[in-house]
Amino acid sequence: MASPGELAAMRRAVELSLNGAYTTPPNPDVGCVILDATGATVGEGWHEHAGGPHAEVNALAQAGERARGGTAVVTLEPCDHTGRTGPCTHALLEAGIARVVVAVADPNPVAAGGAATLRAHGVDVEAGVLEDEASTANARWLTPFRTHRPFVVWKFAATLDGRSAAADGSSRWITGPEARADVHRLRAAVDTVVAGSGTVLADDPQLTARLDPSDAGPADAGPAGERPQPLRVVVDSRGRTPATARVHDDQAATWIATAAEVGATPDGRVDLAKLLNALYEQGRRYVLLEGGPTLAGAFWQAGLVDRVVGYVAPALLGAGPAALHDAGVGTIADTIRLDVTDVRTVGPDLRITATPRERPQDHRKA
Amino acid sequence: MASPGELAAMRRAVELSLNGAYTTPPNPDVGCVILDATGATVGEGWHEHAGGPHAEVNALAQAGERARGGTAVVTLEPCDHTGRTGPCTHALLEAGIARVVVAVADPNPVAAGGAATLRAHGVDVEAGVLEDEASTANARWLTPFRTHRPFVVWKFAATLDGRSAAADGSSRWITGPEARADVHRLRAAVDTVVAGSGTVLADDPQLTARLDPSDAGPADAGPAGERPQPLRVVVDSRGRTPATARVHDDQAATWIATAAEVGATPDGRVDLAKLLNALYEQGRRYVLLEGGPTLAGAFWQAGLVDRVVGYVAPALLGAGPAALHDAGVGTIADTIRLDVTDVRTVGPDLRITATPRERPQDHRKA
Ligand SMILES: NC(=O)c1ccc[n+]([C@@H]2O[C@H](COP(=O)([O-])OP(=O)(O)OC[C@H]3O[C@@H](n4cnc5c(N)ncnc54)[C@H](OP(=O)(O)O)[C@@H]3O)[C@@H](O)[C@H]2O)c1
Ligand SMILES: NC(=O)c1ccc[n+]([C@@H]2O[C@H](COP(=O)([O-])OP(=O)(O)OC[C@H]3O[C@@H](n4cnc5c(N)ncnc54)[C@H](OP(=O)(O)O)[C@@H]3O)[C@@H](O)[C@H]2O)c1
Repeated sequence: MASPGELAAMRRAVELSLNGAYTTPPNPDVGCVILDATGATVGEGWHEHAGGPHAEVNALAQAGERARGGTAVVTLEPCDHTGRTGPCTHALLEAGIARVVVAVADPNPVAAGGAATLRAHGVDVEAGVLEDEASTANARWLTPFRTHRPFVVWKFAATLDGRSAAADGSSRWITGPEARADVHRLRAAVDTVVAGSGTVLADDPQLTARLDPSDAGPADAGPAGERPQPLRVVVDSRGRTPATARVHDDQAATWIATAAEVGATPDGRVDLAKLLNALYEQGRRYVLLEGGPTLAGAFWQAGLVDRVVGYVAPALLGAGPAALHDAGVGTIADTIRLDVTDVRTVGPDLRITATPRERPQDHRKA
Repeated sequence: MASPGELAAMRRAVELSLNGAYTTPPNPDVGCVILDATGATVGEGWHEHAGGPHAEVNALAQAGERARGGTAVVTLEPCDHTGRTGPCTHALLEAGIARVVVAVADPNPVAAGGAATLRAHGVDVEAGVLEDEASTANARWLTPFRTHRPFVVWKFAATLDGRSAAADGSSRWITGPEARADVHRLRAAVDTVVAGSGTVLADDPQLTARLDPSDAGPADAGPAGERPQPLRVVVDSRGRTPATARVHDDQAATWIATAAEVGATPDGRVDLAKLLNALYEQGRRYVLLEGGPTLAGAFWQAGLVDRVVGYVAPALLGAGPAALHDAGVGTIADTIRLDVTDVRTVGPDLRITATPRERPQDHRKA
């Protein structure tokens, strides 16, 4: 049984794990709190970026000698393998940690086994503490192990009345520079950006992550420019994307995903479940779906969206295309219901993050 | 010059003034902080409901003897007349207050003159401190003095993608019971509820404030049932509202405002500026515009909305009518821009409060 102090520490560790949300991918979001032998918090850490120290190592560094005989509370089972950093199990043993409280077991066959190793060395390991909360926080990394497709975030920008362009089609800019910079940070975090042929034909977007110098991140992560650009995917049933489109520039790799190559739906469009499985096979784990409204509707219809990030401008248009078109909902009982997990202001705009609730017709677990 | 301590106290007084937002109307939202002779806060108060003690009196009661020789920091000039309660000027003089710091002068000819009375009794009065902030907080009460029309709040309920009904027209319920209860509190606060003939014909709403017993408010305000119901106004150019409509029940007074009675626009619809002026002449000061989307669009087109309260459900529909229709915006440069003043969760839903920015084509000050 985890003590009340350990539960509080796990809640804090879950909170810490989200500090690196934009920088941690492709690695898991992990947080760690070290309690000394009396139960006092003596170290906190999170995993900030791939190649950097893991959460446990950061928290142990803060705790120093006070960790000896203490407890490590960590949201994901400590790793047991040497990647770009040494195994966390060694670090915990060396620091003299007596007990490890874990939320979620590591589903990654390469890194798993940490709990067993710790136990073999006499450490008291308790697993499954606040597993649901920690799984939700780390869903971006955990989901692909279960679904064999990348985690999909649908991003949209709209006015308070749900319009993503004015009546004449003009849409620059609905949201402010801060929200647009935030989208670039989100693009830099994912490994794949997906857009529909409609958006590419209408707007000719470049779909690359263009970070402000101030967003370059910690020095040991390398300059932001060195982070690989996400793969650009255009969902384009009949290959209508022109050779001159900006997605064909040399800034990033691009895949024009046609129905012929991926597989077709009965109405001849790209089969989106097959598209995501193909991306998974190519090693892709984190997709930013940038729209437009038709493609987003098709993703929702297929139950293939894991998270929504909506940038809502405090503005009204009263006319113009909606942010979402034809998501397969005909009547109020079939509404796609979400849970809001975060709301914050980004400059003058609101950023609303939400997660779909399970629905009866939800095929995501099938 | 107000001291830094007095400025901080005024900021706090503005904050306090909003505590009664749903209960204070038709009275002004006022907050007051009492500082003792050393500048320490010894009392705080706000005006909670018409008939109850004013902010100054509540704050003085908390301060007691410590008010003597101290400073009263108050968001609105203290009243100088005997209404349902005695004049605040007397209360301040009796408490031995030496200095009064005021944000906004009282525009109400009946109650004004407080500053002059205080000065005549040797009190040091400073006015205009944080006037803008305090005016914004009290805009609901101050605006009608300037515009000679009621303050208009447009309320809407929509999904995250801006739909106020599903494709088949069903809309019960987009928002949850907490948001619906909040709307009833808002209705109980206003003196007039306005809806379009389209909404009345489609939904046959009752448009009364039906409060939960727990919302009944303080005992000395009388039971909630005794608060007068707002006037129900149906904007109905040709008088199409059927005699059997629920707005004709005996729960509240109703005005079917036709173009013939109010005045017509060139296209034969009810002239909304004239409607609001007529309501003002009838003593109405606070209008809740409940839609639908067409009437709301016409109010925006005419520049007649002072505040937006949007209940946004974390849900997606992808089809169905939008919350706002034809607000006179054709291109992105003409977007109606707002400032968000408050965002909070109401049950599972978000409530977003925002205020329109001044626009070049804005006729509200004309
Ligand atoms: N506010 C925002 O966040 C945002 C973001 C992006 C875009 N937009 C706006 O959205 C507009 C374009 O939207 P759109 O709806 O016309 O285009 P879209 O959603 O980008 O693309 C839709 C097209 O994707 C293709 N497609 C392929 N497989 C599909 C499938 N399984 N299901 C659905 N579509 C599939 C279809 O064309 P084919 O069958 O020919 O392949 C379809 O017409 C632009 O004006 C852009 O500005 C707004
Ligand atoms: N989600 C929400 O918050 C919410 C709130 C309310 C309603 N609704 C929905 O909205 C739908 C009805 O909307 P609606 O747009 O059809 O009706 P509406 O906005 O309620 O009423 C529009 C009608 O008002 C009359 N009108 C009179 N003077 C006008 C003027 N100056 N400008 C504009 N209209 C004027 C016009 O009819 P005449 O010319 O015949 O008078 C016009 O057709 C319903 O389905 C309801 O469920 C949603």
